[in-house]
Amino acid sequence: MADHGVPVVRWADTPEGPVLALLDQTRLPAEETELICEDAQALVAAIRALSVRGAPLLGVAGGYGVALGAVRGHDVADVADRLASARPTAVNLAAGVRRVEGAHRAALDDGAGAEQAAAAALAEARALHEEDAEASERMAQLGHELLGDLVRRTPMRLLTHCNTGMLVSGGRGTAFAVVSQVHAAGELQKLWVDETRPLLQGARLTAYEATREGMPFSVLADGAAGSLFSAGEVDAVLIGADRIAADGSVANKVGSYPLSVLARHHGVPFVVVAPVTTVDLATKRGADIVVEQRPSEEVTHVSSPYAPYHPEARGERGGGIPVAPMGADAYNPAFDVTPPELVTAIVTERGVISPVTSETVAGLCSPSRTTTSRWGNGMMKA
Amino acid sequence: MADHGVPVVRWADTPEGPVLALLDQTRLPAEETELICEDAQALVAAIRALSVRGAPLLGVAGGYGVALGAVRGHDVADVADRLASARPTAVNLAAGVRRVEGAHRAALDDGAGAEQAAAAALAEARALHEEDAEASERMAQLGHELLGDLVRRTPMRLLTHCNTGMLVSGGRGTAFAVVSQVHAAGELQKLWVDETRPLLQGARLTAYEATREGMPFSVLADGAAGSLFSAGEVDAVLIGADRIAADGSVANKVGSYPLSVLARHHGVPFVVVAPVTTVDLATKRGADIVVEQRPSEEVTHVSSPYAPYHPEARGERGGGIPVAPMGADAYNPAFDVTPPELVTAIVTERGVISPVTSETVAGLCSPSRTTTSRWGNGMMKA
Repeated sequence: MADHGVPVVRWADTPEGPVLALLDQTRLPAEETELICEDAQALVAAIRALSVRGAPLLGVAGGYGVALGAVRGHDVADVADRLASARPTAVNLAAGVRRVEGAHRAALDDGAGAEQAAAAALAEARALHEEDAEASERMAQLGHELLGDLVRRTPMRLLTHCNTGMLVSGGRGTAFAVVSQVHAAGELQKLWVDETRPLLQGARLTAYEATREGMPFSVLADGAAGSLFSAGEVDAVLIGADRIAADGSVANKVGSYPLSVLARHHGVPFVVVAPVTTVDLATKRGADIVVEQRPSEEVTHVSSPYAPYHPEARGERGGGIPVAPMGADAYNPAFDVTPPELVTAIVTERGVISPVTSETVAGLCSPSRTTTSRWGNGMMKA
Repeated sequence: MADHGVPVVRWADTPEGPVLALLDQTRLPAEETELICEDAQALVAAIRALSVRGAPLLGVAGGYGVALGAVRGHDVADVADRLASARPTAVNLAAGVRRVEGAHRAALDDGAGAEQAAAAALAEARALHEEDAEASERMAQLGHELLGDLVRRTPMRLLTHCNTGMLVSGGRGTAFAVVSQVHAAGELQKLWVDETRPLLQGARLTAYEATREGMPFSVLADGAAGSLFSAGEVDAVLIGADRIAADGSVANKVGSYPLSVLARHHGVPFVVVAPVTTVDLATKRGADIVVEQRPSEEVTHVSSPYAPYHPEARGERGGGIPVAPMGADAYNPAFDVTPPELVTAIVTERGVISPVTSETVAGLCSPSRTTTSRWGNGMMKA
């Protein structure tokens, strides 16, 4: 967003050559510091450490990473492979990487020299960045309209999980962009922010974004969402997505699926907001989605940007403060999968689908689809 | 348990007079230290700070607290009132307090002197402690038998929330005692331990108990339980209870209710293990249960027995490390309420009820109930 002091991702030409500067999200909300990546390997490390994260932003960053490799004269195919596989679940990462790699190769195939091809790669990364910002705007508008249809009550109480705002995107984000649009319209009573264990992206990052926008919000332990549903305090759930399979199954931050079950139990709409690039038609069903398993230490230890480093607790990921007994094992999937029948609607920059089925997902991805069809009854709204 | 170095609760006569020594649970698993309460006011503070916690143990501790007041010559009625209201949700606390207060008053009514009446109060507190240990044993046996009926598969994968073992009871505990019995029988494949935000009683205390007993276990973020259900990795959920209403609604640590909804969605038994004293017939329905709201800082900050004190973060409850932006508000109910229709069975020391209805709950509490009736079809097993 324009009002953000430190850009989330920024290409910079320095005397030592071009770099990719990232707002280090592991330090938020304690401080806004930039992490400077001089090559793709540094970017891979930043992606793995979650310094840069969020499905759409990973695509943008990955695209710039390929351009960085090209400009620096590295082996672009190798750079692209390493970036594309830095995290397995977010399809946008690989999509952004392959798109910029493709532009680079196409330039070479057209007879461009190395420098021209690198310039083409950078131009493609910048175009991707711009398109992502535009997609955010469109999702914000469409999601706001959809909530007007789904929720009979204003102002609304919306619940979200993980972090889906400007920190995950080249623009305003996905689910959070919709909340922001609702807030701008004076229709937000409360944003309920799941803290989102284990890495607390909700408490750290979504609360930071909500504070910046002056939204009324409260953070809650993920397990407390059930109490809000019971009390009738949630009008809709809005989440992002890391990958959407061809059948409409949605992979998103772990803890999303329990919300979908609670939402269904209480008759509350469960809405997914994600750009079309999140849809991966090559992944047929939810069961085919590869879910990243992350280290035990993220659960057995707690960490905070404010937390002093604890030398005795240093694990492979750089420490944290232990809470469980030393050596305790943890089950730590990064994502879970919500089946399409529990998703009320998917909002994309190309339109809204509801119900979510193989057919409506295919229609969304079809280049020939009619964007004027009416939403509802299995049709799309765009 | 006999093998525990530091007793969870201990009455001690010192040269300065009698004291109640408590294993300080806020320091576990980092260290085993005793907190010495010289009077009821210190015990009230220890209860509020969660140094002593767990519904049955609160009853035992509260009972000793009344005895302490009596022995020290304080106003027993006043002491009892302050102890009984130290935490609002756990019915056992007030029940233990009132029982010992009643024994003290009865002794006085019978013409006993102050010293004799205090001795009667202490004897009653000790009897309560002993009975609680016996109730644990019985629940462990009955719960194990019930699982043999409900779960078609051995060894079993059991999921639990919060902490329900020796740290919450005068004996082996409630839900954890059942898990322990299953483990002792060689029938436990895995105990899934919900970390239980915000205070991480699962990661800290249940993991500590499971480690001590040599159980195979993994800790998980509360939101990751959904992934385990989806993958078919949970054979039954076992939890304790802080209060059971007359209609069978169960108040327990926040995050329990979402598990009951997930369990129902996946056809997995959801079993509550609690002594009969947890049933409060004066609370007619779940909606009548007073749910304690705790400070925002428990959610907006993380704390650990290993965490160094952070002076800038000191909140009213003594600090912790901030994760959310400074000043962020949190919704922090300590408990949630699971309706009886989502509870497969309640295991008590007096028998098992299933289904859970006003009638079966009333039968459980009736002094004239038949303890030989067969379990199933609304009958009880004892």
